[in-house]
Amino acid sequence: MIKNKLKQAWAEGRATMNGWCSIGNAFTAEIMAAQGYDSLTVDVQHGALDYSSLLPMFQAMRASGVVPLARVPWREPGIVMKALDAGAYGVICPMVNSAEEAAEFASFMRYPPRGQRSFGPTRVSFAAGADYAREANDEVLAFAMIETGEGVANLDAIAATPGLDGLYVGPADLTLGVMQGRLAPGFDREEPEMIEIIQRILKAAKDNGKVAALHCGTPDYAARAIGWGFDMTTVSGDSRLLAAAAGASVERFRALTTKAPASAGDDDQGGY
Amino acid sequence: MIKNKLKQAWAEGRATMNGWCSIGNAFTAEIMAAQGYDSLTVDVQHGALDYSSLLPMFQAMRASGVVPLARVPWREPGIVMKALDAGAYGVICPMVNSAEEAAEFASFMRYPPRGQRSFGPTRVSFAAGADYAREANDEVLAFAMIETGEGVANLDAIAATPGLDGLYVGPADLTLGVMQGRLAPGFDREEPEMIEIIQRILKAAKDNGKVAALHCGTPDYAARAIGWGFDMTTVSGDSRLLAAAAGASVERFRALTTKAPASAGDDDQGGY
Amino acid sequence: MIKNKLKQAWAEGRATMNGWCSIGNAFTAEIMAAQGYDSLTVDVQHGALDYSSLLPMFQAMRASGVVPLARVPWREPGIVMKALDAGAYGVICPMVNSAEEAAEFASFMRYPPRGQRSFGPTRVSFAAGADYAREANDEVLAFAMIETGEGVANLDAIAATPGLDGLYVGPADLTLGVMQGRLAPGFDREEPEMIEIIQRILKAAKDNGKVAALHCGTPDYAARAIGWGFDMTTVSGDSRLLAAAAGASVERFRALTTKAPASAGDDDQGGY
Amino acid sequence: MIKNKLKQAWAEGRATMNGWCSIGNAFTAEIMAAQGYDSLTVDVQHGALDYSSLLPMFQAMRASGVVPLARVPWREPGIVMKALDAGAYGVICPMVNSAEEAAEFASFMRYPPRGQRSFGPTRVSFAAGADYAREANDEVLAFAMIETGEGVANLDAIAATPGLDGLYVGPADLTLGVMQGRLAPGFDREEPEMIEIIQRILKAAKDNGKVAALHCGTPDYAARAIGWGFDMTTVSGDSRLLAAAAGASVERFRALTTKAPASAGDDDQGGY
Amino acid sequence: MIKNKLKQAWAEGRATMNGWCSIGNAFTAEIMAAQGYDSLTVDVQHGALDYSSLLPMFQAMRASGVVPLARVPWREPGIVMKALDAGAYGVICPMVNSAEEAAEFASFMRYPPRGQRSFGPTRVSFAAGADYAREANDEVLAFAMIETGEGVANLDAIAATPGLDGLYVGPADLTLGVMQGRLAPGFDREEPEMIEIIQRILKAAKDNGKVAALHCGTPDYAARAIGWGFDMTTVSGDSRLLAAAAGASVERFRALTTKAPASAGDDDQGGY
Amino acid sequence: MIKNKLKQAWAEGRATMNGWCSIGNAFTAEIMAAQGYDSLTVDVQHGALDYSSLLPMFQAMRASGVVPLARVPWREPGIVMKALDAGAYGVICPMVNSAEEAAEFASFMRYPPRGQRSFGPTRVSFAAGADYAREANDEVLAFAMIETGEGVANLDAIAATPGLDGLYVGPADLTLGVMQGRLAPGFDREEPEMIEIIQRILKAAKDNGKVAALHCGTPDYAARAIGWGFDMTTVSGDSRLLAAAAGASVERFRALTTKAPASAGDDDQGGY
Repeated sequence: MIKNKLKQAWAEGRATMNGWCSIGNAFTAEIMAAQGYDSLTVDVQHGALDYSSLLPMFQAMRASGVVPLARVPWREPGIVMKALDAGAYGVICPMVNSAEEAAEFASFMRYPPRGQRSFGPTRVSFAAGADYAREANDEVLAFAMIETGEGVANLDAIAATPGLDGLYVGPADLTLGVMQGRLAPGFDREEPEMIEIIQRILKAAKDNGKVAALHCGTPDYAARAIGWGFDMTTVSGDSRLLAAAAGASVERFRALTTKAPASAGDDDQGGY
Repeated sequence: MIKNKLKQAWAEGRATMNGWCSIGNAFTAEIMAAQGYDSLTVDVQHGALDYSSLLPMFQAMRASGVVPLARVPWREPGIVMKALDAGAYGVICPMVNSAEEAAEFASFMRYPPRGQRSFGPTRVSFAAGADYAREANDEVLAFAMIETGEGVANLDAIAATPGLDGLYVGPADLTLGVMQGRLAPGFDREEPEMIEIIQRILKAAKDNGKVAALHCGTPDYAARAIGWGFDMTTVSGDSRLLAAAAGASVERFRALTTKAPASAGDDDQGGY
Repeated sequence: MIKNKLKQAWAEGRATMNGWCSIGNAFTAEIMAAQGYDSLTVDVQHGALDYSSLLPMFQAMRASGVVPLARVPWREPGIVMKALDAGAYGVICPMVNSAEEAAEFASFMRYPPRGQRSFGPTRVSFAAGADYAREANDEVLAFAMIETGEGVANLDAIAATPGLDGLYVGPADLTLGVMQGRLAPGFDREEPEMIEIIQRILKAAKDNGKVAALHCGTPDYAARAIGWGFDMTTVSGDSRLLAAAAGASVERFRALTTKAPASAGDDDQGGY
Repeated sequence: MIKNKLKQAWAEGRATMNGWCSIGNAFTAEIMAAQGYDSLTVDVQHGALDYSSLLPMFQAMRASGVVPLARVPWREPGIVMKALDAGAYGVICPMVNSAEEAAEFASFMRYPPRGQRSFGPTRVSFAAGADYAREANDEVLAFAMIETGEGVANLDAIAATPGLDGLYVGPADLTLGVMQGRLAPGFDREEPEMIEIIQRILKAAKDNGKVAALHCGTPDYAARAIGWGFDMTTVSGDSRLLAAAAGASVERFRALTTKAPASAGDDDQGGY
Repeated sequence: MIKNKLKQAWAEGRATMNGWCSIGNAFTAEIMAAQGYDSLTVDVQHGALDYSSLLPMFQAMRASGVVPLARVPWREPGIVMKALDAGAYGVICPMVNSAEEAAEFASFMRYPPRGQRSFGPTRVSFAAGADYAREANDEVLAFAMIETGEGVANLDAIAATPGLDGLYVGPADLTLGVMQGRLAPGFDREEPEMIEIIQRILKAAKDNGKVAALHCGTPDYAARAIGWGFDMTTVSGDSRLLAAAAGASVERFRALTTKAPASAGDDDQGGY
Repeated sequence: MIKNKLKQAWAEGRATMNGWCSIGNAFTAEIMAAQGYDSLTVDVQHGALDYSSLLPMFQAMRASGVVPLARVPWREPGIVMKALDAGAYGVICPMVNSAEEAAEFASFMRYPPRGQRSFGPTRVSFAAGADYAREANDEVLAFAMIETGEGVANLDAIAATPGLDGLYVGPADLTLGVMQGRLAPGFDREEPEMIEIIQRILKAAKDNGKVAALHCGTPDYAARAIGWGFDMTTVSGDSRLLAAAAGASVERFRALTTKAPASAGDDDQGGY
């Protein structure tokens, strides 16, 4: 079985960079896979896609050697196992609130006797190799997202869960979950109390021999997080990168060509 | 029928900005449609897509009010008319070599007695309005691409073709077509002989009462082209914007976090 | 954020008409969206479709201004939240049996601290507007279907559930659920005991400040239901409308053209 | 090979009813196939679909025994032959202008030595039977549409084309083609000059031993056409049937429930 | 309603052969449906497909008369009921551990009062007939897979579950589940302790009036299983059959044409 | 640019084995790509697929290093160039009748000044490398199929066409084309007159410095053809391999388990 490069990088003390795919398309996946990320996560939770896109996206990524990951919509065994069978070398599970939930999720990720994953690597065995069955338990990564108030309250118990490989911090939900609406959701938090919680999660992971990952909006914040000790950072994603790049291009064109305020696109509805 | 905003803008003397869609996906189309372009062209020729993507992309663009255009793979009546029926307010035809070819293409774009388009606005009438049949001939735009050696040789005759609305310059093919391999293909030409040809096409369009459009790689070059007199410029496209933005993000992350040369993704094949 | 027109209509005392989409296709969605319904529900439960169709259908509906709703297959958090992220302004949850189930469903619909919805409006923010995060909790609608024997038994407790916006009556399942097989399932019930139960659900909704909706088979029955006090009625759906209209067309043709009994299509299997 | 029921019906002197599929969806195809039409045409020309929908639609129709036909976008050999390989028992070719065009189209429809169709019944042999190769030339039907001014001028020569099985009248294009814009396009013409042309096409078909088909908007007009001698009539299609049925349902609901003029859906854009 | 041929065969004492579809494609489904299997199972669990493929696959199978079954990813009500609505005449549920789980699964399969299935046979009523609602409870088959250590421990209780129709043995998972990693997963077990367990499951089914099914890798093992008393055997599946047949073809070609060891495809990465 | 391994093999005097994909699915493509073929051709002509399947199939093949080829439906420039842009390292053009047609096809395959291919390697540049533009003309392969009577008559002129890389023999069409119906179409011809024609095509290729390829049904015939001097042979394809393997499996099961004649699947229509 082809080894999990993320585990190799972390073993060598190198932090990794994860890309994020919210567009359900195999060509955007192939584009993203060519950029040099260590891993790419197909977001089946909030991405505009489901399993029917995940599969061709993993296929399109395969040649690049980037590590394929998936975020699942919820702690539901059907999709967790389907994501693994489709080729995921790791699964990120959102909204984990307790050690019980973490343990249940972790059990979906491994074959017996270490878990309750069902056997049938129909597609992944083409991508990962014929000895997948024997080695998959050691190669796939189970990430629990800490992003709810309850999850933070149970942080240490979750972090101690056997079979869990890492904690993944989602700052947007985390802000909603612990701030009771006092702060707007978003990435790259600068509020001291948010940074404190994020670092507390990092510490809990480290104290329990787990890796820690942070979802970021910019490479600069990601680099700061690496400095704090995070092992993996996600830096924005395809839909945001595209929207920002296209928007900046339009803005620059308008600035260079328009004297009066622009009137294109969003003001009048009288024409096509 | 909803009027063609491009014609309105040009009538007011305002040059327009066209976006470019090479990714066959309705969500990327919706993202692009939110950025403020005057028009968006779905590239059925070189884009990684065909009609089966074009249709949901036009549907996803509709709410934004952006003008939907299509570039077709070739001067083939089937796809030209299907693009119109799907909702295109204009079609860009590649590789037009002669006045005969231009006239044939133009004939595909209009209903009799002005052309030989077949009647059946099954989907477009939902988007454009019930009186589409009566007004479509006046609203849709036929662009012939001047990008071959032969096309340049026949420039004036092509430009004079009745029923043609504009000339569209594709600098990459144009370079291949007229330079006999002496220059590499690409946008945003700076060679004087290329600029001379581009401006000659612009002049031929203007002399014949046609609009002129240029495919550009940057807003800055596009603004220069507007200054030369072009009515419409295309500025890069979704797949390039995404690749460039993601690549820059990775590069910055690597620069901020790596001491030794990066080793991720493209060097070893020993792991996933 | 674009406001929910259903809430506005009900606030003005106007009952609304909901259309129903069981065909997984963006063009039929666009056709339905042009007919003047107040809202359209994509039926991910019994419709011949799943999330991969829901997304382009919501995109195709967007330009019309019709309010997009979804019925989910079950009280499963993954699909409830994906439907919201895809653009649903309301979700109809089938087979709610108790106040606990109603509360759990309602919790999936709102961001903390009002619920446990996870944050990531990747696509819906393009359709609903940039301030979606702040206002979504107030705009989206959570409907619990009362259609099981247990649900009827727990009617008042369900109706009193905080966070629930309305009760939705599914007469086919309701008949199965409460009649123990004595009546065949179907819409537009005329049996006094069924009407009594339907009106009891209506009253429970009203007593608890909730809206009430009824699934109907004809506009005439729907109008009666509006007269009883229902706030929203669903009137048949795309697959039934198509089958009925096409069937009637065939029948009329046969009646006009056939002397002897028709023999087409369904009797012999010997030819194509 | 399963025989072509249309040929059998016509041999028995029975006129047939053709349904029309413009929605690119296998479920709508299955619905249409259950209504009792003699044949169903998937419209690859003006329908909102292409080959990628045609194939599953033919598969979904297969069990019903309805005869599968296709209309192609243009007289292009690629799609004509792909439609046959996908299972079409007949192809309708639009915009045939001359005997040369008719003969070219007919040649695409038959294997040598009767034509130039390429051999490879990959899918159709599953639906039509293993001896497809030997009998297909005798079973498939080639229809040329007479709908242009030039086509009418060359009517007799077209009708005399060997290998052509029938003439198919498209009244919308025909009106555009011969009336020089004096009449709006549409079905079910009542103008004497249009009826005269339609009957002239019918006569030309009969004089040359060909079948004649007419595209109609209502069963009543179709029955009249059968009375004139047409062998096959198409009666409306899925998208029109759906739009009309849904629109009527909304209208009736509004009439029954609204006192003041309705304000739903199409007037204000201020909400969703 | 069209009767379930499997039940008829078993009533006549004839064991049936089930085919397996792991490729998400309607054409492969149509190919498989032409081979003479008694039933075909679309594997939504480990197959490279989801509901969006299941539906057109069932449509493509319909004409053949083969009995359509589905294996679902997990004991999740949403997909169990969607598979039935799509046309499944039986559902195989993986990883059933206890009588409680078996009873819950069985309840998803029947309409009240025999279960909690929700009513809405939108597509299946086209394939199965108009009286589906009345007879479906008697025709559909609920199979629980016995393949975990816990499932084997609770074998008799599971087998006794009312509403369950059969036990389905998955030898790969079963080996993992009961052997604690001592044996590699796979079909067609020859180890005496595995055969003993398999036969124990068979006996439990028979003792409780249930049918017994076994997943096999070869027709020869399947025939042995029939000899033991199994009512249904699955014999390999589309992806394995294709891989084996293509691989054997390549191997034979290489053997016939190569003198030196072959170097194609898998050794060097220097070319395409 | 990644080099074309086929050219390398032929330069080394090694004949290559081509696989054939008629199923429009990325997973079957990935399965086929794992079997050790030198090249794989996606059949856009007679395969049950079009461009919308070709693209993800090429993506799914990419990691294997197998050389991706496409057969196009016809000598139509749109699809020839789209196949190249999608990643084809060679295109097989059916039904080439003359040197003029061969030259036209060859011109679609190369960028100016060697041809008229339009520039826009949107996707292929991700798979083939950034210098694709400079080297593609030397790497892609243009195969003309000799399979019509006219093509055989013009064999030498076709074989001499500059820009053409090879002749590809399609025995099924060839038999139809030259035998005037005296022989049934099919592969692996044993009739002396057919073998004579096949070898004549081989000789014409060799005499003109072109490669020669033959479509075969078995590895054994392919090996004979290699012995005759063919450079490339295609050996059956995915849909035939699957049908044959599944059919053989069913047959063996029936033989092992049935005493009386089997009655499953194809005789009675009374059940499912």
